[in-house]
Amino acid sequence: MPETRFISDMFRRLAGSGLGVLGRTRAGEDPVDMCHSLLDTRSEVSGLVLARHILDRLEQATPEDRRAAFSRIAAEFGPDETRLQHALSTYVPGDVAAARRLHFAAEPRSQGLIRAFNRVPGATARLVRLRAELLRDTRSDPALASLDQDFRHLFASWFTRGFLELRRIDWRTPANVLENIITYEAVHEIRGWDDLRQRVGDPDRRLFAFFHPAMPDDPLIFVEIALTRDIPKAIGPILDRDRDRIPPEKARVAVFYSISNCHVGLRGISFGNFLIKQVVEELRRDMEQLATFVTLSPVPGLRRWVGEEMQTEEGLIPKRLRKTLSELEGDTPPDPATLREVTALYLTRAHRASGGALDPVAHFHLGNGAILAHAHAEADASPRGMANSWGAMVNYLYDDSRIETNHQSYANTGDIALSSEIRALASQAAKG
Amino acid sequence: MPETRFISDMFRRLAGSGLGVLGRTRAGEDPVDMCHSLLDTRSEVSGLVLARHILDRLEQATPEDRRAAFSRIAAEFGPDETRLQHALSTYVPGDVAAARRLHFAAEPRSQGLIRAFNRVPGATARLVRLRAELLRDTRSDPALASLDQDFRHLFASWFTRGFLELRRIDWRTPANVLENIITYEAVHEIRGWDDLRQRVGDPDRRLFAFFHPAMPDDPLIFVEIALTRDIPKAIGPILDRDRDRIPPEKARVAVFYSISNCHVGLRGISFGNFLIKQVVEELRRDMEQLATFVTLSPVPGLRRWVGEEMQTEEGLIPKRLRKTLSELEGDTPPDPATLREVTALYLTRAHRASGGALDPVAHFHLGNGAILAHAHAEADASPRGMANSWGAMVNYLYDDSRIETNHQSYANTGDIALSSEIRALASQAAKG
Amino acid sequence: MPETRFISDMFRRLAGSGLGVLGRTRAGEDPVDMCHSLLDTRSEVSGLVLARHILDRLEQATPEDRRAAFSRIAAEFGPDETRLQHALSTYVPGDVAAARRLHFAAEPRSQGLIRAFNRVPGATARLVRLRAELLRDTRSDPALASLDQDFRHLFASWFTRGFLELRRIDWRTPANVLENIITYEAVHEIRGWDDLRQRVGDPDRRLFAFFHPAMPDDPLIFVEIALTRDIPKAIGPILDRDRDRIPPEKARVAVFYSISNCHVGLRGISFGNFLIKQVVEELRRDMEQLATFVTLSPVPGLRRWVGEEMQTEEGLIPKRLRKTLSELEGDTPPDPATLREVTALYLTRAHRASGGALDPVAHFHLGNGAILAHAHAEADASPRGMANSWGAMVNYLYDDSRIETNHQSYANTGDIALSSEIRALASQAAKG
Amino acid sequence: MPETRFISDMFRRLAGSGLGVLGRTRAGEDPVDMCHSLLDTRSEVSGLVLARHILDRLEQATPEDRRAAFSRIAAEFGPDETRLQHALSTYVPGDVAAARRLHFAAEPRSQGLIRAFNRVPGATARLVRLRAELLRDTRSDPALASLDQDFRHLFASWFTRGFLELRRIDWRTPANVLENIITYEAVHEIRGWDDLRQRVGDPDRRLFAFFHPAMPDDPLIFVEIALTRDIPKAIGPILDRDRDRIPPEKARVAVFYSISNCHVGLRGISFGNFLIKQVVEELRRDMEQLATFVTLSPVPGLRRWVGEEMQTEEGLIPKRLRKTLSELEGDTPPDPATLREVTALYLTRAHRASGGALDPVAHFHLGNGAILAHAHAEADASPRGMANSWGAMVNYLYDDSRIETNHQSYANTGDIALSSEIRALASQAAKG
Repeated sequence: MPETRFISDMFRRLAGSGLGVLGRTRAGEDPVDMCHSLLDTRSEVSGLVLARHILDRLEQATPEDRRAAFSRIAAEFGPDETRLQHALSTYVPGDVAAARRLHFAAEPRSQGLIRAFNRVPGATARLVRLRAELLRDTRSDPALASLDQDFRHLFASWFTRGFLELRRIDWRTPANVLENIITYEAVHEIRGWDDLRQRVGDPDRRLFAFFHPAMPDDPLIFVEIALTRDIPKAIGPILDRDRDRIPPEKARVAVFYSISNCHVGLRGISFGNFLIKQVVEELRRDMEQLATFVTLSPVPGLRRWVGEEMQTEEGLIPKRLRKTLSELEGDTPPDPATLREVTALYLTRAHRASGGALDPVAHFHLGNGAILAHAHAEADASPRGMANSWGAMVNYLYDDSRIETNHQSYANTGDIALSSEIRALASQAAKG
Repeated sequence: MPETRFISDMFRRLAGSGLGVLGRTRAGEDPVDMCHSLLDTRSEVSGLVLARHILDRLEQATPEDRRAAFSRIAAEFGPDETRLQHALSTYVPGDVAAARRLHFAAEPRSQGLIRAFNRVPGATARLVRLRAELLRDTRSDPALASLDQDFRHLFASWFTRGFLELRRIDWRTPANVLENIITYEAVHEIRGWDDLRQRVGDPDRRLFAFFHPAMPDDPLIFVEIALTRDIPKAIGPILDRDRDRIPPEKARVAVFYSISNCHVGLRGISFGNFLIKQVVEELRRDMEQLATFVTLSPVPGLRRWVGEEMQTEEGLIPKRLRKTLSELEGDTPPDPATLREVTALYLTRAHRASGGALDPVAHFHLGNGAILAHAHAEADASPRGMANSWGAMVNYLYDDSRIETNHQSYANTGDIALSSEIRALASQAAKG
Repeated sequence: MPETRFISDMFRRLAGSGLGVLGRTRAGEDPVDMCHSLLDTRSEVSGLVLARHILDRLEQATPEDRRAAFSRIAAEFGPDETRLQHALSTYVPGDVAAARRLHFAAEPRSQGLIRAFNRVPGATARLVRLRAELLRDTRSDPALASLDQDFRHLFASWFTRGFLELRRIDWRTPANVLENIITYEAVHEIRGWDDLRQRVGDPDRRLFAFFHPAMPDDPLIFVEIALTRDIPKAIGPILDRDRDRIPPEKARVAVFYSISNCHVGLRGISFGNFLIKQVVEELRRDMEQLATFVTLSPVPGLRRWVGEEMQTEEGLIPKRLRKTLSELEGDTPPDPATLREVTALYLTRAHRASGGALDPVAHFHLGNGAILAHAHAEADASPRGMANSWGAMVNYLYDDSRIETNHQSYANTGDIALSSEIRALASQAAKG
Repeated sequence: MPETRFISDMFRRLAGSGLGVLGRTRAGEDPVDMCHSLLDTRSEVSGLVLARHILDRLEQATPEDRRAAFSRIAAEFGPDETRLQHALSTYVPGDVAAARRLHFAAEPRSQGLIRAFNRVPGATARLVRLRAELLRDTRSDPALASLDQDFRHLFASWFTRGFLELRRIDWRTPANVLENIITYEAVHEIRGWDDLRQRVGDPDRRLFAFFHPAMPDDPLIFVEIALTRDIPKAIGPILDRDRDRIPPEKARVAVFYSISNCHVGLRGISFGNFLIKQVVEELRRDMEQLATFVTLSPVPGLRRWVGEEMQTEEGLIPKRLRKTLSELEGDTPPDPATLREVTALYLTRAHRASGGALDPVAHFHLGNGAILAHAHAEADASPRGMANSWGAMVNYLYDDSRIETNHQSYANTGDIALSSEIRALASQAAKG
C-alpha cells in the first residue's frame, strides 16, 4: 500500500484543520527548533507529519546549514539531566538493574529523534543518506562523531542480519534496481546497460545483493560472480564483452570478482561476511559441480606501502628488491616475478596497528576465513589497477573445511592462512 | 530465499568441521553459559549457529528452567563494569558527549545478546514469543522487569512504524495468515472458517492488518470493519450469518467493530493509533461515499467499576441509581435507560490515576482523538458482554476535523470529547 | 488489472450513449436472437457488452429455457450456406487448399459465437460451466451432441498443455483456491478445513494442480500425494488424522492417492497424463531419495462387473470363485484371498469393446504406462469403497524406465503390464 | 514452475530408455517426416518431445530449407480423405449437423500439427516467430497462404481478448521486458535506455501493453502516452529530453503518440482497438481531471498518394493545389497552409477499394470511432516524417459520447467523423 500517500493525505487533512503543533511549522522555522517540538508532541500523527517536514528541510538545506543543524542536534539533544542525575544518585557499582536504569537515563534524546524520523514511511533510506552527509561533516568537525554514534548504534539494530533478504539480480530484475547496481558498482565500473546485461544476464554470470525491507529497491551490498572453468589470473577476460560464454554446468569455479558496498551512510555496519558465505551456499545448491570458490581481488594498498617503505631505511623490503624497485621509472611496473614477490611480501608481512593485514581487502577476506592463494602480475590494466598495485591482483580461496579455523586463527593471533605458492613467494621476497 | 536453510546448511558444514565454539555446544550445556560464549565469539557464522542453538534450548526448556535462565541473564549480563567505571569517572554533568559515552558504557550486555539472537533468520517472531513468557514470569518475579526493559526498548526500535506494512486481508489471503487471524481475534471470537469467510470475504466487510517484514505471515494487530447504512446499535446483527449483505457502494458508515492485538510479547509497543487512521484513509480512497467512521466498542470495565462503587459510601454513583442497581438480582441487567446512564457516567467520570478515562477501550479511542458518541443497552448478548457490561456497548466517532484537537485536549487536560447525547445521559445520571 | 471493471465501465458509458446494438438488448429479448445480433455487429466493444449480456441471460435462465436456447443455437448457427456451396462447387478430392477452403466454409457459426463469448473477461470459466449444462442436456436430447462438438473442439485448443501451469498447493495458498480444492475432491472427500490442512500442510503430504491463466483461482485437475516409507496397503492410515507424520527426507515412496478432475465441463480434455508425469519430475527434483512412485487406487467397477458376470452362464469367473461369490450375503465381502484374486481377474481379463481394461481407473493408469503392481483387500472401508469393490484397492506403479514401453504396448496391443504378484493372482483365479 | 526444465528432464529420461518414436529422431531425419510421426504417435510424452525437436529443427534450418518444409506441410497435411469423402457423401444442404461433420472432416491435419507444437512449453512465442517466416515466404510462394490460414485461425483463437492482460510498463518493470519495448517501438524509435526511461518513468508519461500468459515477458502491442496541458501540435516537444515535465495532476490531455504492434507473426490478429479503449478507462480512473483523449499520429501515405495523384490527369487534387505542389523542389515541403489542406483532402477523400480511408492509420482510428480533429504542418521533422508526409501530423480525438456512433457510421457507410476545422480545410482544399 502506498504508505507515503497515506501520510500525504493525513497531512492535507491535518493542515486543513489548521492547528496545534503544525501551526508552528512555518516555512521559515529552524529545523532544529522543530526537532524540539517533535520530541515534545504527544500526538503520533502530528509527530509523523512534523518529522517528515524536518527531513525535507534537512535535505534541502545548504551543506553549511545542515552541518550547523547537526552541531546543534549533537549539543542540544543530550539526555534528560534530571533523570540522569537521579539514576546516578541511586547507582551502585555491580547492581545490574541500577546500571540498566543509568543506561536508559543517559540515553541522548538525539536517539529518540532519529527513531522519530524513522517512523516516517520511506525515511530509512533518507536517514542513510543523511548519515553520509554527517560522516563527511565529521571530518572537518570531529565533535559530530558523537552524534554519529547514535546513527551507527541505531543502524546496527535496524539493519540486523535477520531483517536482510538475499536476492539474485538478473535480467528480469526491475530496471530501477538495475540502475542502482550500475550506480553503486565501485570496483570495476559498469559501462552502461549493455555491460550490465552481460554481468547479470549471461548464463555464466551471477549477481547477488542484500536488501532491507524498508529500502526494497535499493541494494545494501552486492557481489558479482563469474562461473569459469579455471581460477582466473586477470580481470580483463572476465569483463571482456567478446569473451566465450560457457554453459553453467561446465563451470567448476565460482569467482567473486567484485564486492560493492552501496551506501556510505552504512559505514561500519558489516554485511560482506554473510553475503559471501550465503552466496556460496546458494551457488552450491544450484550447481553441485562447483568445486572452488575464490575471489579475484585488487591489492589497493600495494604501491602506497612500497612508497612508504622506500622512504624508510629499515622497512620490510630487503635490499635486493629495494634496489629493483628504486630503479623503476615513473609508473612502469616491476617485472612480473618481482611484482608477485612484492605483493606476497606486502600482504603477508605488512600489518595494521591492531594486528591483521594492512591491506583492507586482504583484511576483509582473511577475517572471513579465506586463504590467500595466488598472486598475479599483469592482471588489471585499468588506470586504477595500475595506480594502486602496478596491475597486480590476488585470489582469496574460500574453502569450507578451513574457513572457521582460519577465521579463528586470524582473529585470535593474526595468523594469515597461505597457500604454499604465496608462502614460497613471500619467503623468496624476504630473502632479499 | 530460504534463509533458514542457509543457516542449516552452514551449520551442517561447520559441525562437520567439528571445532571451535561449536565444539562446546554439547547437548547438556547450560543455555546461559552458551549466552556467554555467544558474546565472546568473534565469528559471525559461529555466533549465528550458536544463537540459534540457544533459542532452541530456551524454547524447549520447562517453564521453570526458562525462568531460571531469564533470571541469570538479567543478573549476569549487565554492562562492562570497567568501561562503565571509566565513563563515570570522566562524566561531567551537562556534557552531552560524556553522557553519550555513559549511555553506551552502561548498556547491559543483555541487549547485545538479544540483538545477537535477532540475527538468526526467523528469530524476530521467536523473540516476541519469548518475551511473552518473560512477561508472565515477571508477574511472579518482579526482578525480571529489568530484563524486560531491554526487550521493550529493542522491540520499539525494530517494530518502528516505518517498517510496518498495512495489508488488506480477504478471501484471497493465504490460509496460514487467515488461520492466524482466527487464532488472534480477541474481541468477538471467530467460530471457524465459515465465520471467517464472511468477515473477510463478504462485500460489506473489510479486515486490515499491520505486518512486520520479519514476520510476513503473522499479523501484529488487525481491525475488522463492517460497511453499513447506519451507525449500529448492537453487535449481533453485524456478526449474524443470515444478515442482509449490502453492496459496498450503498454503505455510508464504516464500523470498526473489533481491534485485536495479536502478540502478548509486543505489549507496550503501540500500533492501534496508526492502524485506525491509516485504514480510514484507505477506505475513504476506495469509497468516497463513506461519510462516517465509527467504532462499535465494548465497555469492559463497567460492571467491575459499579461493583467497586457499590462497596463504598462516597462514590460517583448518586443515590437514585445506587438504589436501582442494588435491587438487581444476579446477572439481571438494569433497565435500558438506567444502563445507558450508568455507562455514560462511568465513561465520562471514572478516571485513572494518571488522568484519562478509567475504561481501557475508552482510554484508547479518546487518546486517539475520537468522540464518545452513543451508548446502547442490549447491544452485546454474549456471555462476556453480559459479564463485563450487562450487554452495553458504545460508539466512538472518528471525525477528521476534530481528531487532532480532541487528541490534544485529552492528552493535555484529560478532557473527553462527548456528543450531546452522552453529555445529556451523563448529566441525567449524575443528578441522582 | 480489473478487466471486468473495464467492461463494466465501458458498458456504463455505452449504455449512457444509448444507441445501436445495445439499444436492442432489452430485458425481455430472447438470448438466441441476441446471439444473431452478436455475430452481426462489427463493433468489438458493442460485441463484448452484448456477449456478456447473453452469458448473463443464459446463466440466469431456467434449465428448460437454457436447453431450448442450446437447441436453437445448434440448429440456427450452422455454416454460411452460400459460402459452403461455393466451396463445395470448387472442391476437388485431393486438393489440400480446396479442402482447407471447405473446412473454413463449413465452420458452423456456433464456433464463432463461442469465440465471441470467450472474449469477455472471465468468460472462460463461465463457458466451462455452460458446457457442463449442455452435457447434461445432451443425455435427454442427443441432437445437442453436435453443438457440444464445437465446445470440445475449442476447449481442446484453449486448454492446450502449453498454456497450463502446474502449481503446488499448500497451506500458504489463498483460501479461495483451497476452498475450491475442498469442493472438487471427488475420490476421498475432504471433511473441512482441518482435514484439508493436513493434506496440503503436513510435511509428508503434497498437492499439485494444473491451472489455466484465464481461471487463475480455479484448478482444472489436482493430485494428492502422501510421502511414505513403504507402499501403502490401505487408504485409512493415509487419511487418518492421528497418523504419525514423517519428515520428508525419510520418505522413500510417493503415493498418488487421489486424482480429481474439477470440471464436468472439461470432459474429454485430458490433463491427467501430464499431471502425474510432471509431478513425478517435481518430486524427484526436490527429494532425490524417493525411489518409488505408485498410486493407491480404487477399483470402481469391480462389484458391478461381478454382478454382471454372475448373471451370465459363460463369463470369465471360473466355477470355484463363482460358487464362493454366490454364497455371499448382502454386502458381506469375500474373504481377503478370494477378493484379491477376483480383483486381479477383473483388472487383467475384463476388457472394453475398444480394447484395454474395462475398469476406468485401470484404463487411465495403464494407458499412462503404469504397471498393475499390487492388490489389497480390506483397503477402503468407506461406504463407496465397500459398495464398489468390497473395500479392495490396488497400486499402479510408475517406473520411468518402463513407462514408454508399457504405454506403447497397451496402446497398440492392449497388453497390460503386470507385476508377478498380480500375474500369479490372476492365474490362480482363472484356474477356477 | 520451470516447465521447460520438466520437458528437458522428461526427454533425458526417455532418451535414456532409448526407444520407440524417439529412436527415430535421428539428427539427420527430415523435420517434415518427423511431423508425420508426430501425428501418428499416441503417446503424449513422446509427442511432446518430438514436437520440441521439430520446432528446434525448423528454427535452425536455412531459410530455403524452412520454406521447403512449409511447402511440404501445406501440401501433405490436408484432411483425412477417407473421412472427408464419407462426410461429403452424407452431407445434405441445410443440415447443420451434417455441415458440422463436414467441417471437422475437412480439417487439415496441419492444424493438428500446429496444435501439437503448441503443447510444448514456451512454444507459443516460437510459433509466432515461425509464422513471421511463413508470411515472408508467402510473398514469393503464394501457395503458402493456404497454410497461413491455419496459423491465423488458431492464433485468433489462442490470442482471444479474454486471455490477454493489460499491464502498465514503468521503470519498475523487469529489464527483459523493457528491452523488448525498445526493440519493438516502430513509430518513434527509442534511442537507448535513457530515452526509454523518460518514456516510461517520467511522471507525465505512461506506457501500457497487452500480454498473453504464454508469452509473459513479450508484449503483443503497446501504446505510449504523454500527459499534457494542451493538445500537441508536433512530436518534437513530446520526445525532447529537455522538455518541462508536469505533475500528472496538472494534465488535462492524454496523448496517444505511438502504438506499436510487436510481432509480424500476429498480423491480422487485432488488439489495438481494445488497447486504446481500455487504456482510456485506466487513465480516467486514476486521473479524473483528464478531459481529452487524443492521438498525435503520422500520415504515412500522404506523399505517396500525392505522387500518384500528380501522375494522373483526373485526380482528387484540384488545379490550384496541383500547381503549387508541382512547383516543389526535391523534398521541400509545401507551405504550412497548403500542407494542412492537402492533408485534410487526402484523409477525407482518398478511399480504399473496400471503402474507408486510404491512409492505414486513419483507417484504424476512424474504425475505432475516433474523430479526425486537427492537422498540423511542421509537426514531425524526422527523416521518415518528412519522407512520408512532409512533416504533417494529425490528431484523432476519442470522445466517449460519440465513439460508438462514429464507429457504426464508418463501418456501415464509410462516413468519416470530422471536426469543423478539418471540414473547413478539406472544403478549402477541394475548391481548387
